[in-house]
Amino acid sequence: MLTRIDHIGIACNDLEATVAFYQETYGFDDVHYEVNEEQGVKEAMLKINETGDGAASYLQLIQPIRDDSVVAKWLAKNGEGVHHIAFGTDGDVQDEADGIAAKGVRVLYDKPRRGSLGSRITFLHPKDAHGVLTELVEKARD
Amino acid sequence: MLTRIDHIGIACNDLEATVAFYQETYGFDDVHYEVNEEQGVKEAMLKINETGDGAASYLQLIQPIRDDSVVAKWLAKNGEGVHHIAFGTDGDVQDEADGIAAKGVRVLYDKPRRGSLGSRITFLHPKDAHGVLTELVEKARD
Repeated sequence: MLTRIDHIGIACNDLEATVAFYQETYGFDDVHYEVNEEQGVKEAMLKINETGDGAASYLQLIQPIRDDSVVAKWLAKNGEGVHHIAFGTDGDVQDEADGIAAKGVRVLYDKPRRGSLGSRITFLHPKDAHGVLTELVEKARD
Repeated sequence: MLTRIDHIGIACNDLEATVAFYQETYGFDDVHYEVNEEQGVKEAMLKINETGDGAASYLQLIQPIRDDSVVAKWLAKNGEGVHHIAFGTDGDVQDEADGIAAKGVRVLYDKPRRGSLGSRITFLHPKDAHGVLTELVEKARD
């Protein structure tokens, strides 16, 4: 079951400048940085609010670290903006993805990969989801 | 202060089909419909989760009802997808907008307009917000 908006993924050209914008303009100060070599991005997770399922909703700011990363190509085409949205699961993310695939939506990974904050993630094809690149997130156990 | 992701606004060509997709694929069943003549859209709010500030996060699916509406022009250019993101305030939305304008971000409305579920809203210029059309929402008092 999908129990929250886990995050909104926003692609940017300059991670430090974009984090500073969100901090200074809106006051979002709870920031966690990491690099995801597999995805070819560096990123910042800005916590926005707690959620009713005991987790939280974040903004995920992502900057490519390689010109051949998927996000680099997306930015070259679209410019800065919302890249994807992510829903959090209350159970195993692969089980959730299997249930969604059975309804005719293409799942982009054969098996879950590592996401932000130690999560397990997969993605759904935007052409099967009314134009929205959609991520599923199983958060790390505390 | 901005205390939650209030909603993610998603533009679509067929509201009924898109609501059905989100219900059938993900199980989001708490749906509220309305028409916003001023904005030239019909919309559905799908509640995703409660938030720590006592409110909730939604998906807002929006379909233009006039060819000259802002969202109709956006869809013609971009196709279906994420149109804007919205943060919820814990106070007066105009006060929040004034504070943000003082930091150099253009606010698109002179005074707040009516948003979904009886809220008061305004928008920030995407060119001043790293490419993201950003809405501020003061929810209706219960």
